Parts: sequence; C-alpha cells; structure tokens
Amino acid sequence: MHLRKVAIIGVGLIGGSLGLVLKEKGVAESVVGIDIDIENLRTAKRLGIVDEYTTHLEGVRDAELVVLATPVCTIIDLAERIKGCLKRGSIVTDVGSVKGEIVSRVEPMMPEGVHFVGGHPIAGTENSGAGAAFSSLFKGKRCILTPTDHTDEEALRKVKELWKLAGSEVVMMDPRRHDRICAAISHLPHIVAYTLVNAVGDIDIDEEDVLRYSAGGFRDFTRVALSPPQMWRDICLLNREEILNMLNLYEERLRSVRAMIERGDGEGLEAEFERSRKIKERMKVL
Amino acid sequence: MHLRKVAIIGVGLIGGSLGLVLKEKGVAESVVGIDIDIENLRTAKRLGIVDEYTTHLEGVRDAELVVLATPVCTIIDLAERIKGCLKRGSIVTDVGSVKGEIVSRVEPMMPEGVHFVGGHPIAGTENSGAGAAFSSLFKGKRCILTPTDHTDEEALRKVKELWKLAGSEVVMMDPRRHDRICAAISHLPHIVAYTLVNAVGDIDIDEEDVLRYSAGGFRDFTRVALSPPQMWRDICLLNREEILNMLNLYEERLRSVRAMIERGDGEGLEAEFERSRKIKERMKVL
Repeated sequence: MHLRKVAIIGVGLIGGSLGLVLKEKGVAESVVGIDIDIENLRTAKRLGIVDEYTTHLEGVRDAELVVLATPVCTIIDLAERIKGCLKRGSIVTDVGSVKGEIVSRVEPMMPEGVHFVGGHPIAGTENSGAGAAFSSLFKGKRCILTPTDHTDEEALRKVKELWKLAGSEVVMMDPRRHDRICAAISHLPHIVAYTLVNAVGDIDIDEEDVLRYSAGGFRDFTRVALSPPQMWRDICLLNREEILNMLNLYEERLRSVRAMIERGDGEGLEAEFERSRKIKERMKVL
Repeated sequence: MHLRKVAIIGVGLIGGSLGLVLKEKGVAESVVGIDIDIENLRTAKRLGIVDEYTTHLEGVRDAELVVLATPVCTIIDLAERIKGCLKRGSIVTDVGSVKGEIVSRVEPMMPEGVHFVGGHPIAGTENSGAGAAFSSLFKGKRCILTPTDHTDEEALRKVKELWKLAGSEVVMMDPRRHDRICAAISHLPHIVAYTLVNAVGDIDIDEEDVLRYSAGGFRDFTRVALSPPQMWRDICLLNREEILNMLNLYEERLRSVRAMIERGDGEGLEAEFERSRKIKERMKVL
C-alpha cells in the first residue's frame, strides 16, 4: 500500500502512534497532522510523527486517507465539518471506542465517492498527547473494524491492511454488536470501578483509615478508576443504550445477591459465587 | 516467647503457615494439629508443620495457645465445643476475616482464666490446605488484632508478639470498625466482581464472543472472582450488616450514575469520574 497524503486529525497517543507506523512502514509519502493544540503539533513534527501540520481542518484537502483520532464525542461533528473538503475516492476512518452512533451518523453524510470505515483499535496507555506516541502501541492488539452493507470493499481492504501493518489482529464486527460487547467487558466494568471507589470514598469522610488499609484486592480492582474522566463521560453519552442494557442485567443480579445476603441464603450465595468462578475459568481457556 | 504446647485447629494455608513460623522461630516446643481431614494432617506432619496431630478437639488440652484457623463460619461453634477442654491461663485466638460477630460471641463464652484475642492476618494465596503453607506468608502483611475492654493485656501482648515474629505489621482495631473497613475495601469489591462476571456471563449465552474479547481491564478486574465461593458465602453471612451498609452507599451512587447516563448529563458524569480519580490518587500517597 502506498498513499501520497494521509491526514490525521487529533495527533494524540492513538493518532500519533498511527502516524509513526505510517512513516516507519513507508506507507505514506506525507502525513499531515491536524490538531487544535499547536504545541502538540510541534512535538509531533519534532518526533517525526507528521511531515506537516496545521490547526485548520482544510488540511484534509487532497488526502487519500483521513484518520479521525480526536475524542470520541467530537468525531461526528468533525466528519460534518470536513466533508466539504474531502477528495473523491478518499477513505475516512476513525478510532472511536463507540461505533454504532458514529457509523450510523458519519456513513450517510460522506459525499459521493468518499468511503467511510469505522474502526476501534483496542490499545492505549495511561499517557496522552503526541509525546506519548510509539509505533508498537498496536502490536499484538485487536483492532475492530465495523463495516456495514454500504461499506466499500476496497476501502475496507485498505484500512484492514493499515492496521495489520501496525501489528494488530483485525476483527470485523457489526457496529451495534461492537457496542454491546464493549458495554459488557469495558464500559460497565469502568462505571462499576468508578462507583465503587466513590462509594468507599464516601465513608472515608469519617473513616480516615479506610484508604490506608486498601492494600491488595481493592487497589488492583480500582486501578481502572484512573482512566481519563472525559473519555468515560463521552463513552457513557455515546453508548448510552447498550450501557443501560448491561446496567439492567448487572443491577438485577446485584439485587438478587443483596436479597440473599439479607435473608442469609448461604446456599444461594455459594451458587452465585461458584457460577462466576466457572465463567472466569472458561475465560482462561479462551 | 516460649510456649510448651500450641494447638492449631484447621491446618490449612493460614493455620499451617503459622505452624511453620512457630517451629522455625522455636516459639513452640510442640505444635498439635487438629483437623477433620486426616490426609491433610499427615501432610502437615510430613512437612514439619505439626509435631502431633489428631482429629479430636480434645487435642487442645494442656495447650497454652489455641489458634482457631478453620473457615470463618465454624469458629464460633468450635469455640463452644472446645471451651470445656481449655486450660486455665491459656490464650485462644482466631484468624477469621470477620471480627464483630466472632469476638462478641466467643469472648463471653470463654471459661474463667482463659483469654480470647480476635485476630485477622491479611494474607493468603489462591491455594489451600497444609500443602500450600509457607512460613513467609505473613511477612510484610498486616495483621489486625481486635481487643475489647475485656481483653487481657498480657494475652494481647503475646498474640501481638507472635504475629510480629511472623513478620507482620500488627494493627489494633475495634472489631466493628474492622468489619466496616473490610466491608468497604474487601467484601464489597468481591461481591461487585462476582456480580459483574455473572452479569457478563448472562449475555454470553447469546454472545459467544464476549468472553473472547475480554482482554485487558475486565480480566484484571475480575481476577478476584476466582476466590473460594464458600469463604465469600461465609463472609456475607457473618458480616451481613456492614456489607449491607456498604451496599446501600454503593447502590445509591450507582443509581445516581445511571440517572446521569439516562438524562445524558455529561457534566455530572465527568465530575463523578473525576472524583474517584482524586480518591484513587490519594490512595497512592498513603
């Protein structure tokens, strides 16, 4: 694959790391970085992530590939704003961690001859910004692409090739299915972790020592509560429906466990805890 | 400290490891192991954890120190059954992970001149039985002792010395306070983890791949769901009140987060997630 010009909007950890892949693998002759933060763009240029940069969205002009790598809640709006500048035959892809809403809104707004492919590389670190980017970020990680009935075959093939070059295992999935799975294995666990830490924080007002004794399990358990709040706010807003569905299932089980504790139902509790052990053990095999 | 005879009831991971400490440090002339599992006792003897063993509770006779190290729900009943055989001046201690109920029930049932000291070494592995015991299990870990107004000073001093010999940092705490703190930082997180895994397991019936995609966060998050179901059943039954109190706080916050997701309250969600980050960061300092 050879591309003359690639535009990356949002040159952060994900966008920047993808830029490095494009340069290192010699896929793109020129990578243009577009960002609202000029200092971040200078860093990207200095690190060889981009060849040129601009804070103007017009920078996407003439690009054969445009990567939307800004926070997930900005992607739909961004697609709307760049659509007038997109070159016929070009491909637009994104890296947002919610897909249903983005794909269903962005796909139909693309001009004739411009092809959108929804994507979600499952990779990240606790750091952000171009300075945190590194080309092996996606190596050995999964990247989910979410084509629809309208997705252009050739565009899909190219985006797939790109992520394979980055070292990812590419998986195809229906956008809504992606959101349902992520609600279960990522979004709900994060919400639960945040809520648990906050509930423990509540009693800490009177119980100074609670946090002092929080060694072991709790510490590991709530490590996820260090994720960026803005990102999880956006995910909750964008994947609202699937998250609420998962929350329903979770709350239903929690109510049932609470009832068992209330009535001292040892047999029920043991069966409940035994069940999750079996599920967990099945996961080990997979 | 020198003891002529120590009886350990329940020669499992905790009881067995404490036995090894007693032998290695030369604290006890003779350690008697008492267990319902004769094979386990033979293993304990072979590994040098105990000098003698018996499946009869009368084995506690003449012991200067009796350690109750059986599953937490059996401790009160066990204390009741051995009390007639206890030597005047002897010390009885336990290692149960719930303290309020145990201390308030066991302390008053002790015969005149026998001193009870409640204890909870915060240590463990995924393995169980005498074969899993090792003398450094308690090294660098906390051991919480829960004296009351009636606790004998000299008995407390000896039990404290014992755990210090095992390498633990000994902390004194009111039994109810112990249970409140453990409900927050250990019991509730375990219940939440079990429930989360089960809720995700619920959707797996139709979504074969959910578990397949459960890399990263979820796997770490639910590692706790591998703990022994019987132990958590017992903890839920014994620390019922404090667990329900914590569950109330947790469910209240969860309801509030759900309402924010439902009404699309981005500001509220961000504040909620930001809050737990601050609590988490405070924990890092401690």
